[in-house]
Amino acid sequence: MKNPLILPELRDFIANGDVQSLRDVCEASSPPIVAELIAGLEPGEIWEVLRHSEPDVQAVILSHLEHDTQVAVAEIIPRDHLAHMIDEMAADDRVDLLKLLPEDLRLEVLPLVSSVERADIMRLSTYKEGTAGALMTTDFATLPEDYTAVQAIDLLRRESPKMETIYYAYVVDSSGRLVGFVSLRGLIRAKQTDLIRDIMKSNMLFVRVDDEQGEALQIMQKFDILALPVVNGGDRLMGIITIDDIMDVGQDEATEDFHKMATVGAIKGGLREAALLTMVRARAPWLMILVFMNIFSGAGIAYFEDTIEAVVALVFFLPLLIDSGGNAGSQASTLMVRAMATGDVGMKDWFRLVVKEISVALTLGLLMAAAVISIAAVRAPDVLVPVGLTMVCTVAFGSIIGMSLPFLLTRLKLDPATASAPLITSIADIGGVLIYFSIATWYLGLGA
Amino acid sequence: MKNPLILPELRDFIANGDVQSLRDVCEASSPPIVAELIAGLEPGEIWEVLRHSEPDVQAVILSHLEHDTQVAVAEIIPRDHLAHMIDEMAADDRVDLLKLLPEDLRLEVLPLVSSVERADIMRLSTYKEGTAGALMTTDFATLPEDYTAVQAIDLLRRESPKMETIYYAYVVDSSGRLVGFVSLRGLIRAKQTDLIRDIMKSNMLFVRVDDEQGEALQIMQKFDILALPVVNGGDRLMGIITIDDIMDVGQDEATEDFHKMATVGAIKGGLREAALLTMVRARAPWLMILVFMNIFSGAGIAYFEDTIEAVVALVFFLPLLIDSGGNAGSQASTLMVRAMATGDVGMKDWFRLVVKEISVALTLGLLMAAAVISIAAVRAPDVLVPVGLTMVCTVAFGSIIGMSLPFLLTRLKLDPATASAPLITSIADIGGVLIYFSIATWYLGLGA
Repeated sequence: MKNPLILPELRDFIANGDVQSLRDVCEASSPPIVAELIAGLEPGEIWEVLRHSEPDVQAVILSHLEHDTQVAVAEIIPRDHLAHMIDEMAADDRVDLLKLLPEDLRLEVLPLVSSVERADIMRLSTYKEGTAGALMTTDFATLPEDYTAVQAIDLLRRESPKMETIYYAYVVDSSGRLVGFVSLRGLIRAKQTDLIRDIMKSNMLFVRVDDEQGEALQIMQKFDILALPVVNGGDRLMGIITIDDIMDVGQDEATEDFHKMATVGAIKGGLREAALLTMVRARAPWLMILVFMNIFSGAGIAYFEDTIEAVVALVFFLPLLIDSGGNAGSQASTLMVRAMATGDVGMKDWFRLVVKEISVALTLGLLMAAAVISIAAVRAPDVLVPVGLTMVCTVAFGSIIGMSLPFLLTRLKLDPATASAPLITSIADIGGVLIYFSIATWYLGLGA
Repeated sequence: MKNPLILPELRDFIANGDVQSLRDVCEASSPPIVAELIAGLEPGEIWEVLRHSEPDVQAVILSHLEHDTQVAVAEIIPRDHLAHMIDEMAADDRVDLLKLLPEDLRLEVLPLVSSVERADIMRLSTYKEGTAGALMTTDFATLPEDYTAVQAIDLLRRESPKMETIYYAYVVDSSGRLVGFVSLRGLIRAKQTDLIRDIMKSNMLFVRVDDEQGEALQIMQKFDILALPVVNGGDRLMGIITIDDIMDVGQDEATEDFHKMATVGAIKGGLREAALLTMVRARAPWLMILVFMNIFSGAGIAYFEDTIEAVVALVFFLPLLIDSGGNAGSQASTLMVRAMATGDVGMKDWFRLVVKEISVALTLGLLMAAAVISIAAVRAPDVLVPVGLTMVCTVAFGSIIGMSLPFLLTRLKLDPATASAPLITSIADIGGVLIYFSIATWYLGLGA
């Protein structure tokens, strides 16, 4: 799709004032594709390309540009025209753009936006980040129960330009409570005279405004639906979440979990653009916490100073043993964190899984002990027994900590993804040091 | 949605032979919801619930059950009826089910499936796992260019039961080459007499049958489209990928990458059901490789045996220093792997990112060195300088390895997600051991 040839061509159209060609560019392809085509232009040029089209076309193309570009373009557009475009944007995109605009520009534009849309902006802005309410759009189609299929299709045709999707339409009662829905596919298949009341489905899936977006994602994914209604405490239909918006949530949540598993904090925007300070701020806090935790491993080793002085060869196996516990543990914690995030595993499964993990970890530990003993048999025969025993114990210790910590964090209402690989590694280190030198001190008869 | 009360009720219907109620259960809700409701029943009971409905309803409900359940139910259904249901399934679901059936059952059923569907099964089965061809369905709607909008809607209405989606319909020329598409929304909005040729969009997005599914995912996500056409080398339309199928791919790919980042191999099916042997097989290989890698750290330490014997306090800081390099490195590699998976970063960005990483890593290393020096100033004043210097060097070393390895793996046509946290940790360990004891030997004047 990428066509680097198009930018010079677009610049020619602008230079020659070729209004018709510019309008064609905006209207011949679907808006996300147009956004991609013009994304390489300067903000001023983007506005030159857009300005000859209708405000609704401009609005939807603008909403598909990168957030930074949206703001840069918005700053160029005459204020009253910008307000008009904001009127035309989808309810959710509009709120996103307004949140990004500099304070002074927002204050200039907001009074110019029509009062209905302004009330809508206010309402959508009040939902907490990460909730279904903050993601939903209010541009959904509703149908009266007593319409016929043909009347309904006609209504959807007329409303279509304003709606985020017309592939589902919702039926509400006189007090705004959601009572059913029909798909456009169902309407097309129905007899023209069928009443909505008779063809609508009333066994509905929905989320509440303050439910987590992840919950909406799981429902939409599991039941293969293109839009999910969002209701308030009184079952009133407040908005819908469309599949294109929820897909981005799935991607963003996975990225966030990836970063958490590597103890990286939130990074807004892309990695390529992130500034030095942003990166340091995202990465330093956990690295510092881990430094402090590792001091405990050091203290543990210091406690066994005499043992080490007696048999220095013990130190050769230290990185191997503590890493092995950490590696097995980070496997276990990653498996759990991901299974919890996708809904494959819930709190109730902990006991059954811990029992299974013990047998898995012991098997792994025995295999790894056998490997290390076979390698080290020649080099360090006198420490083989403590090394082998420690391998089994640290792998079991690391694995059980690794699989249990995500459950414990969830129980404490914390994010299970905080049970990151480096954290598990640090805990496994402390445990590994104590287990290793205790066994060695005892086995080698070095105790006081 | 979950309703544990429904199972006893369903069992009552079965016991009483209440055919009408069973049929209502199957047809009153959308198939994925019915599948969820009956998923808790035994396979025999599931068939009792389904058997009174039409084969097309049975087929689509069956395809929404877990794979294991699908197979268990399929084994109960009379062979000729099963063949009939398979005829009615969506092309992609059908291939998935047939792949899962035991060899003998498949050989019994396949000859009973109608010949058109059988040819389709053969064609879809030939695409390699992970390609767009293996994911696509052949149940897409096509339209002739010279139809009017109203004729087109009428055609879609009639074809609707057989199609995976009717929200997009595709226009092909006489040799089957894809020339454009219309959305149902566009058709509804068009004037009844408008010709498809005039309202279709020809600036199209598509993938080829042998493109990776991840590529299709990125396109569909970026351009917010509900279905993506799949063409062969000669631009002939072979199938479409629908958004519900691609969402599962996004989820599965993220899970796979999570597992790879923790050196866990492929686990088929859910974590709760995975057998001991499955888990050991998925986790042991990398753990064993890491054991062998850690032997090198041990050999490195052994090389510096004299230094350690001279100043045992050096060992206290060993876990801290090697872990810090590993932690910074796994942050860097996770950031890169994920950014490459989502398309945020490409091969061309390596040089710019490595330059930035050096400054980030040095800043992090200095902060961490300051922390450890301030803590250890009292306890071990004589090793502070080598510890501080090593901290800066190992954090820089780990970070640069961590961020570069995913690029190197990609260049070698390997999966960047193999640059897992434990692998980076092991490499950082070896580097850390050598850096630490070299600096210490030099600083403390212990060289030969």
